[in-house]
Amino acid sequence: MKFTCDRQLLTEAVLNVQRAVSSKSSIPALQGILLKAKQNSIFLYGYDAEMLGMTTEIPADISEIGTVVLSARLFGDIVRRLPDASVHIAADDHNVTTIQSGQSHFSIVGIPAEEYPELPHVSSERSIRISSQVLKNMIRQTIFAVAESDAKPIHTGTLFEIGNGKIRLVSVDGYRLAIREEMVSSEEQDLSFVVPGKALQEVSKLLLETDEPCTIQVGSRHILFIIGSYTVIARLLEGEFLDYRAAIPQTSSTTITVKTSDFIDSVERVSLLITDRLKSPIRCLFDEDTVRLSSYTPIGRASDQFPAQLTGNSVEMGFNNHYLLDALRNAEGDQVKIELNGPLSPMKVLPMEGNSFLFLVLPVRLKASED
Amino acid sequence: MKFTCDRQLLTEAVLNVQRAVSSKSSIPALQGILLKAKQNSIFLYGYDAEMLGMTTEIPADISEIGTVVLSARLFGDIVRRLPDASVHIAADDHNVTTIQSGQSHFSIVGIPAEEYPELPHVSSERSIRISSQVLKNMIRQTIFAVAESDAKPIHTGTLFEIGNGKIRLVSVDGYRLAIREEMVSSEEQDLSFVVPGKALQEVSKLLLETDEPCTIQVGSRHILFIIGSYTVIARLLEGEFLDYRAAIPQTSSTTITVKTSDFIDSVERVSLLITDRLKSPIRCLFDEDTVRLSSYTPIGRASDQFPAQLTGNSVEMGFNNHYLLDALRNAEGDQVKIELNGPLSPMKVLPMEGNSFLFLVLPVRLKASED
Repeated sequence: MKFTCDRQLLTEAVLNVQRAVSSKSSIPALQGILLKAKQNSIFLYGYDAEMLGMTTEIPADISEIGTVVLSARLFGDIVRRLPDASVHIAADDHNVTTIQSGQSHFSIVGIPAEEYPELPHVSSERSIRISSQVLKNMIRQTIFAVAESDAKPIHTGTLFEIGNGKIRLVSVDGYRLAIREEMVSSEEQDLSFVVPGKALQEVSKLLLETDEPCTIQVGSRHILFIIGSYTVIARLLEGEFLDYRAAIPQTSSTTITVKTSDFIDSVERVSLLITDRLKSPIRCLFDEDTVRLSSYTPIGRASDQFPAQLTGNSVEMGFNNHYLLDALRNAEGDQVKIELNGPLSPMKVLPMEGNSFLFLVLPVRLKASED
Repeated sequence: MKFTCDRQLLTEAVLNVQRAVSSKSSIPALQGILLKAKQNSIFLYGYDAEMLGMTTEIPADISEIGTVVLSARLFGDIVRRLPDASVHIAADDHNVTTIQSGQSHFSIVGIPAEEYPELPHVSSERSIRISSQVLKNMIRQTIFAVAESDAKPIHTGTLFEIGNGKIRLVSVDGYRLAIREEMVSSEEQDLSFVVPGKALQEVSKLLLETDEPCTIQVGSRHILFIIGSYTVIARLLEGEFLDYRAAIPQTSSTTITVKTSDFIDSVERVSLLITDRLKSPIRCLFDEDTVRLSSYTPIGRASDQFPAQLTGNSVEMGFNNHYLLDALRNAEGDQVKIELNGPLSPMKVLPMEGNSFLFLVLPVRLKASED
């Protein structure tokens, strides 16, 4: 294998593909990036052989086709610091690879490509296209509610539902639920699958804040995201996802309009007395024209308040401060609409108009002793 | 105690004084900040009762003089997030302290000021004044060579030598030596003391990049830095500091002029194959018009080179990459002068003109097997 390519393009490709590489695999090849020099391009592969794979292609001047696997960390560190605009890379029959740029020469020991596992194939039969920016926002606004514990593995991923010209993402962890919905021009009907949260995090990093379309190909066991010159492959999660529709209260006895930043600032302040060791719910009194928050732990008491418009019944209820903050920070718009249905029913956080998002936060039962 | 003050001034003062507070003391008061409300100011004290203390003063509207000790972490977190421009603080006879700003109220449990230790007194008899900016640079350019190990406690500090209109800072850790010298208008003669590196780090953070003078008061066991409204107290280290003059080679058989950034970039590149687990010296060949660097570890080989002007003998020698980088990164000027005296004598790094700094780096003996 022998080629010359642009250093910056190579650096960017290596740093991205590196993220799919498992840093602690017992198989040395899996700690590496597979390079394939073919025709006028080099192809880079990163794969953890479990959940996530990433590939990309950059133009190169190929003198000799071939393949080699190089330590992802070391290769990344080297290309990032090379002095010249172009890089010459060559691997001999023993996989000893020289990397040369300007007056800098490196010679490192590679691994035969035969030791690198094959990435799964995903058919392009079922596919949808969506704006990069839209998908990036949708992932951000639902991923916070993905379960961290493996108690129900299916809930460590986000449910994608496609149909009726809509795409919906749903995450749930037993304490809160996040739904995000957008219009999408797709002929696919009733497509539904669950993508691991960790894979979506990597997809999100590759997605640009532009309208450039991202293509999603759905296979039976894997999913492919095609983002510019990158392809991300992820294993789909199997199992029965929560019937989230049944979890959403259909009525509300209280509706409140608040400035999102007011609510966030207040929760942050009354959270200051709460630590991992000194847990306490935040007591929220949703009253006529004011929301009053308070907390109480052995180190002290805090209270705060901000204006709100309320219709319906006043209600006092408790919340976990982190769950409250996650929902509010991921709500779009200066103002949000909050719907409540008594102190033991979940809080619904909605946009002022439409239904682009819906966040549910379960309340915490307040003890009388905390009054 | 009862007062009103500006939130921003208070926040800044708390965040600075907090740095002298020990985060893990067995004495609760030492995890706190002592507040004293007197006349038209509040005084804030942070002290670890061992090595470092810090005090400052901010203007306040005092309704009732008094004292209280508040948890540094909690107090800092609270004042930083208060909503209004002013803060009202009051402590009752049981040290329960209320902090109020806008609609936010906190009530936290304080500690009696009687439990807070007295800070040492330092006489103002012997004092010098120096520009903040100059002292900040001097500390930065010598602190990297302070010993991290406690093997020789005196070398965990920086030696200050004042006399003949000069101030000199010297740090040494057994592998390298850093000397930084400046003119200073002081009538003090032959003043010499050793300040703990950790205290100098805190002093350095308070020093601004301006010519505003900093006053240094030297006591018999402690030193005081007066920086704007802040006072930093540090315990002086006792013991016999290295006779550094004897360690500096007086002659040189090779003199090289290099572009500092060339040398740094090259060392960084050939360092990429060196890890904590795979240690290796960097082999430097100082040749006629080129410096050639190389390294060799089980993962590969690296070589690099850059232009230089050499007078005297060519010489090949080995160095620890971190020590080389520390010296070069702290050298001032686009170019530096390097003096060598054979492969087993220390490298001297000097400015092109004058003697504002002098760094020594001990070489590493190269093994023949590494050729």
